[in-house]
Amino acid sequence: MSQTAISPTRAQDFPEWYQQIIRAADLAENSEVRGCMVIKPWGYGLWENIQRQLDRLFKETGHKNAYFPLFIPLSYLEKEAAHVEGFAKECAVVTHHRLEAGPDGKLRPAPSALLAEPLVVRPTSETIIGAAYARWVQSYRDLPILINQWANVVRWEMRPRLFLRTAEFLWQEGHTAHETEQEAIAETEKMLGVYEAFVREHLAIPVLTGEKTANERFPGAVSTLCIEAMVQDRKAIQAGTSHFLGQNFAKASGIEFTGRDGVKQHAWTTSWGVSTRLIGTLLMAHSDDDGVVLPPRVAPTQIVILPVTPKPETRDAVLAAAHQLAADLRAQRAWDERLTVDVDTRDLPGGTKNWEWIKKGVPLRVEIGPRDLEKGTVAVARRDAGVKEKSFPTMAEFTAGAVGLLEEIQAGLLAKATAFRDAHMVRIDSADDFRAFFADKAAAESADKAAGGFALVHWAGTGDDENRLREELKVTIRCVPFGDEFAEEGPCFLTGQPSHRRVVFAKSY
Amino acid sequence: MSQTAISPTRAQDFPEWYQQIIRAADLAENSEVRGCMVIKPWGYGLWENIQRQLDRLFKETGHKNAYFPLFIPLSYLEKEAAHVEGFAKECAVVTHHRLEAGPDGKLRPAPSALLAEPLVVRPTSETIIGAAYARWVQSYRDLPILINQWANVVRWEMRPRLFLRTAEFLWQEGHTAHETEQEAIAETEKMLGVYEAFVREHLAIPVLTGEKTANERFPGAVSTLCIEAMVQDRKAIQAGTSHFLGQNFAKASGIEFTGRDGVKQHAWTTSWGVSTRLIGTLLMAHSDDDGVVLPPRVAPTQIVILPVTPKPETRDAVLAAAHQLAADLRAQRAWDERLTVDVDTRDLPGGTKNWEWIKKGVPLRVEIGPRDLEKGTVAVARRDAGVKEKSFPTMAEFTAGAVGLLEEIQAGLLAKATAFRDAHMVRIDSADDFRAFFADKAAAESADKAAGGFALVHWAGTGDDENRLREELKVTIRCVPFGDEFAEEGPCFLTGQPSHRRVVFAKSY
Repeated sequence: MSQTAISPTRAQDFPEWYQQIIRAADLAENSEVRGCMVIKPWGYGLWENIQRQLDRLFKETGHKNAYFPLFIPLSYLEKEAAHVEGFAKECAVVTHHRLEAGPDGKLRPAPSALLAEPLVVRPTSETIIGAAYARWVQSYRDLPILINQWANVVRWEMRPRLFLRTAEFLWQEGHTAHETEQEAIAETEKMLGVYEAFVREHLAIPVLTGEKTANERFPGAVSTLCIEAMVQDRKAIQAGTSHFLGQNFAKASGIEFTGRDGVKQHAWTTSWGVSTRLIGTLLMAHSDDDGVVLPPRVAPTQIVILPVTPKPETRDAVLAAAHQLAADLRAQRAWDERLTVDVDTRDLPGGTKNWEWIKKGVPLRVEIGPRDLEKGTVAVARRDAGVKEKSFPTMAEFTAGAVGLLEEIQAGLLAKATAFRDAHMVRIDSADDFRAFFADKAAAESADKAAGGFALVHWAGTGDDENRLREELKVTIRCVPFGDEFAEEGPCFLTGQPSHRRVVFAKSY
Repeated sequence: MSQTAISPTRAQDFPEWYQQIIRAADLAENSEVRGCMVIKPWGYGLWENIQRQLDRLFKETGHKNAYFPLFIPLSYLEKEAAHVEGFAKECAVVTHHRLEAGPDGKLRPAPSALLAEPLVVRPTSETIIGAAYARWVQSYRDLPILINQWANVVRWEMRPRLFLRTAEFLWQEGHTAHETEQEAIAETEKMLGVYEAFVREHLAIPVLTGEKTANERFPGAVSTLCIEAMVQDRKAIQAGTSHFLGQNFAKASGIEFTGRDGVKQHAWTTSWGVSTRLIGTLLMAHSDDDGVVLPPRVAPTQIVILPVTPKPETRDAVLAAAHQLAADLRAQRAWDERLTVDVDTRDLPGGTKNWEWIKKGVPLRVEIGPRDLEKGTVAVARRDAGVKEKSFPTMAEFTAGAVGLLEEIQAGLLAKATAFRDAHMVRIDSADDFRAFFADKAAAESADKAAGGFALVHWAGTGDDENRLREELKVTIRCVPFGDEFAEEGPCFLTGQPSHRRVVFAKSY
């Protein structure tokens, strides 16, 4: 038997390890529909927590939810020239609205039900929402519009990977319209701040905030802001984006209003989104060779209680104690929500159940057996500690300390991920060092093996230079990061031209 | 000016009145995409409350949420013979996965990206979920599976009507698999009970529970149970269904397990769903000629505070009092959730704001002005009372009584809807009376004008008889209702054959 629950380990084969932890935790699986995943209850429980917590942050910042059509008329995509280039490529196209039995008796799209205009399954909703805003906005009094949508979107993917890149995924997309440019820019920045804080405080992942270069910008945006996380193979994951769209989409969709000055003008719009990709990010950021490790704040179950019932005569007492403990814990709140506690009473061997919960990443596992009852103690194991490490507090001590323990685990995961990120974020000043950083032996062996990490370099190259580096080393500029610590004068490592700020190059998902 | 806020009134033109209350309350609108609606924030707020409250009931009955693909391969639909008849008709068919510029420069589905097998946008998910369950189930130990999905579905509709019948709609679909027939039947009945209680207690609508006849059964089901509501034009709305699917879908999808007896067998499955149609039902059940009337339990805002600030010198004090009152109210809970309170500080005439909230259906409106401050009172108006009726409690009295007032309004709406339904549910025993009940003058003038109500009749006719009555009178058997009060012996009103239970005929949406 291997020494870890997951094989291969992260060091042996990171991409395969990722597939295996998802399978072992029963989070999701591929469906027979190419690129589309089935999100199983444990994975969907994560998404529900992310969704509920983010939704609260959106509402606290004045946004309301609404829902817009799944289908976008083909002609809408053509309205914004840059947008069509980016999104009219790989998408699902609805061409018929009826099926019928063909000459061979098999079902087929009915030729008589060919749509006059094909419909595209939304890859993103700027154009269909823009059409609605154009109807809703006449005067500056109708602004701002601050709306968010929780929805599924489809972008045909040739190389899908569970949670990180799937043909259909779940996300939220905020779409706002404003009277002035400044207000729209402020909104774009505010929502990036919401994302940064959410990912740090709820998912325990530190992210860089910054702006994308023109090469990586959202098609149709004036500027794209992003949060970039580093995961354990030192690759970057773009975990969220917030776009300042200028008047581009307002002009394309006709969102016009009469201003305070009586003059007709176009609104300024933004859009911002995060998706089920956040789940992939947190899995790659925290999990280990025994399986998934979940931040307590978003874990579907924070504490699992495992009753140990070897003898029939003590079974009832043990189960009663387990349920009482669960009730006492559920009466408490962490992060303003009730603790989530499961009692696993399934008739399976204790070791089997214990390993199942380890692989699922539950933050705290608590065993209660007949001897514990006698002593009034419980055996507590933390998922963020070694698999065999346990402590033995009294039941009262554990109950009183549970919230603190969860907070400690949450903080510990963030500290660990931050230390890892910082250890692999390196200032690099020459092209040779840059190539060495990214082109190490492991990377040469497999495109999927990560090398380097985040290279902080001075940059004054062109988009073509970026393309060449992507070709050669599979690296891209993840962002031009915000923050004083990146504001330095220096020569571009590639061109020698002056630069005022370091940018972040990395391999990425 | 008309005497009511909505024109036409219910009596004048019910279908048009329905469109107008939706518009006046800013709930939803038609999009340019045929049959697809935009659900605006006020309408979506209703859906969020319905969703959250129902979701809690599903979880309390042991269900977990998951998510399955939007697309269903064409061949899946063909697996269940009855199902394909019912659902392979009007649906959105994806045939291509890429767009490209055609010879004329316009976007078109790329001929090179024709899918080998077309994909259908899910009209319902029995087949795609069945394929997953077939992978997950091997042994009786893997059962039951108790899963629910919140999702969008698409059924091409030729005559869409906001909320009641749209091409795309939002819903939940529960899909469960069981070891035994009895267990699956018990689940089907249990979830019907959840729906009945939810619609009664949360939406304040009494519903009949019962079983559909073969004519109205879900395609592929062994039996379809339903809840049927009566709205104010005395038509029926099927507000939710719960299907016992027998082993039909398990056989079609291959959900097989080894039983306790070691024998391989097919699972027994169920499915059950409610949709945004619930919103249409509650709008038609409670609203009046001044607009929407919302049951407090699901209203996005339960109480709106309207500060009256005629003079600049008292403005700050009035606003402070309004916000303090809101805070005091929000600290309280009704139905285990915090009261939802808005303070409408918009710079608009008081009458404009007041009418807006009337039309939106907010249960309680509270005015605070300078004179109220002096007296320590507020002016309270209930949406379920006359538009001009007000009471003038002290602020403390109002705060202390607010939860009780909301409960009283909720109970009052249910009582009123129940009295209306009971007044229009009539025992009928002859074909002449039946025709007279449904074919009154108003009905003859317009197919949309309702006549009659629920006709409780003895029935022993055939499916063809049902079809003929539908043709002639536009009525169908809504259900064979459960409950002792419908168990009577008597001759079928049409055929004279003996019957043991009355059934419900009605016109319906």
